[in-house]
Amino acid sequence: MNDLPLKPQTQSLTDALRREAAAAPESGIVEAMNYGRRREAVTPLWAGEGDLATPAFICEAATRSLAAGETFYTWQRGIPELREALARYHTMLYGRTFGPEEFYVTGSGMQAIQIVLAMVAGAGDEVLIPTPTWPNAAAAAGIAGARATEVPMSFGNDGWSLDLDRLAAAVTPNTRALFVVSPSNPTGWTATREDLLALLALARRHGLWTIADETYARFWYGDGARAPSFFDVMDAEDRVLFVNTFSKNWAMTGWRIGWIAAHPSLGQVIENMIQYSTSGVAAFMQRAAVAALERGESFVAHLIERARRGREISCGALAATGRVRFAQPQGAFYLFFSVDGETDTRRLVMRLIDEARAGLAPGTAFGAGGERFVRLCFARNAEQLQAAVDRVAGVISR
Amino acid sequence: MNDLPLKPQTQSLTDALRREAAAAPESGIVEAMNYGRRREAVTPLWAGEGDLATPAFICEAATRSLAAGETFYTWQRGIPELREALARYHTMLYGRTFGPEEFYVTGSGMQAIQIVLAMVAGAGDEVLIPTPTWPNAAAAAGIAGARATEVPMSFGNDGWSLDLDRLAAAVTPNTRALFVVSPSNPTGWTATREDLLALLALARRHGLWTIADETYARFWYGDGARAPSFFDVMDAEDRVLFVNTFSKNWAMTGWRIGWIAAHPSLGQVIENMIQYSTSGVAAFMQRAAVAALERGESFVAHLIERARRGREISCGALAATGRVRFAQPQGAFYLFFSVDGETDTRRLVMRLIDEARAGLAPGTAFGAGGERFVRLCFARNAEQLQAAVDRVAGVISR
Repeated sequence: MNDLPLKPQTQSLTDALRREAAAAPESGIVEAMNYGRRREAVTPLWAGEGDLATPAFICEAATRSLAAGETFYTWQRGIPELREALARYHTMLYGRTFGPEEFYVTGSGMQAIQIVLAMVAGAGDEVLIPTPTWPNAAAAAGIAGARATEVPMSFGNDGWSLDLDRLAAAVTPNTRALFVVSPSNPTGWTATREDLLALLALARRHGLWTIADETYARFWYGDGARAPSFFDVMDAEDRVLFVNTFSKNWAMTGWRIGWIAAHPSLGQVIENMIQYSTSGVAAFMQRAAVAALERGESFVAHLIERARRGREISCGALAATGRVRFAQPQGAFYLFFSVDGETDTRRLVMRLIDEARAGLAPGTAFGAGGERFVRLCFARNAEQLQAAVDRVAGVISR
Repeated sequence: MNDLPLKPQTQSLTDALRREAAAAPESGIVEAMNYGRRREAVTPLWAGEGDLATPAFICEAATRSLAAGETFYTWQRGIPELREALARYHTMLYGRTFGPEEFYVTGSGMQAIQIVLAMVAGAGDEVLIPTPTWPNAAAAAGIAGARATEVPMSFGNDGWSLDLDRLAAAVTPNTRALFVVSPSNPTGWTATREDLLALLALARRHGLWTIADETYARFWYGDGARAPSFFDVMDAEDRVLFVNTFSKNWAMTGWRIGWIAAHPSLGQVIENMIQYSTSGVAAFMQRAAVAALERGESFVAHLIERARRGREISCGALAATGRVRFAQPQGAFYLFFSVDGETDTRRLVMRLIDEARAGLAPGTAFGAGGERFVRLCFARNAEQLQAAVDRVAGVISR
């Protein structure tokens, strides 16, 4: 079309990008990490990551697979052995029978989120997200052209709570999905069975998809072996998509492997979404994941016990200052607290890096309602954690 | 909003999905593979993958990293060592100096494509793609809500050629990018320096981004050590984004690791796109990629030599039937040929699986202009390849 107006290339390259891509926010967590990396001897409590490397039995499964030449393209949905192991794991954890056709292996929990979001929401669509929450789902929705509608939870004397009326009021004709992280990163709030039933009813009423991020289900400090789950309350035909990761339970944050649990009728669509994003996960990674599921239970129990102790240590030290407010986390491995008189938590976090040599994440990174809080990851050995939170408490008490 | 119409959940789950996700096509290549997997002793020439496993020195770099506990979150843009190795590799191959800030590590070449597409095109936008070509970029664009406009290349006595007027005529006010694969998978067509200059001029004239997929640059049967490249003709400020992969040069198809080369001013945007899709690539994978770049040259030379021999074998055997038409591939490692009188290439491919025990991919998988062709990957040891193409020739000659 020679009669098109010629666009002179006077714009900068970034100005020529698609608006939604250029507008994607820098992670507020990474920003703090980048600031802290320049300081020496900072105890890193900013990321959602513990201090233990992946256990040897998991690494060795990958090594054996590599040595055996498993370096070719493999199943887009995941190797059959891993899908079967995921089915057995869920059967063990949720007390009903699961089949391998309900599971799809992804290149991280983050990718699981990206894929399920793309399955349900695009340009012009809205996704409801109770906040404060881990910011990446909202950012991924934004890149996809959808709008993440943040619905702040309330913080009061009973801790964090979900205001279902507020959530229902945020539904519009463009709302396609509800994104629920329970146990919550960063607040530790965990949906009760009644909460889950109410959320499911809301979703059913409006024909919404529910995206259930139950990554921290096993880091749970209430009754039973795990937190309440949408698996407990849903019917097979409900529009619920589960995203999960190997990162937290098995100390595999750096691996980038996760999974989707979904109705088998969605299998071909999910396979296509995998094909056109990363085209599957390395077979040798998947062998490691099989080892984690099949031989990892005592390690998971050890991590949970450590987190339980980390929760006591951090809640104890911070409460003793008399200057902080928080709800004791019911799940996950973060303490999300506010400090009396501190309104600029980005500045507070930098000060704690400089003066307490402890790296925290500012609440501003977690959406509406969390701005006056900071997040501390307590998945760390007791001695180091105690020293770090004592230093934090010291700075706060000054 | 209690006055919203209630949507009864009578739809099937797939009907409730976002249209663009549900409409993503099943890979026509995978369809053939799935058919062939049920047969015995089929020589697999359908995928873009050779028959050699990743060399031990590459695998061992990953193994050592794993054993050293490199299992934590790492740099979103890639570890500095790999970005530096990529800069040195490009400096060696393209004869000018590159810096590490021009490179970004991705979880496959496919993910590199998904990311750069999302950077430049979304809902309502158009991406021009000369076809026949590997179908995944068009499918990824479609999932993102953009429209892939296929512009068929011409096949004549001089082989495949790009019709620049036809390409220019396909530009509309919504066109945002031009996706160029050279050397081409599946045709083997390779842009000359003059083609590249003309494409760049077209892109400049209309303010388009060029996405350059030069994955097969080194599998090149013309003069010089590699195919002509956009690096040879562009200015630093041109809107060109390069996508590439470790899959082909270093026999790492199953690993899922690739890279983007782009202007450093785009660094933060690319980091954000990585953060909100897979949040980086495992450090131990990246160590393997460093080994590939730094110690892989003799292996790459070996693969290229094998492909050169494979090209002779397959062109020779097929030409001898007197019943096929093809352009001798100038680059990549595929023979893309039509068979006289055969119009249904999906059926032809199934027949070749059944009767010749050779797995090919149907041209229907590669977009407009390739429907009457089939693709044969000749990156395989000479003996097996000769036997397989002889069987294919036998069936075709009947």
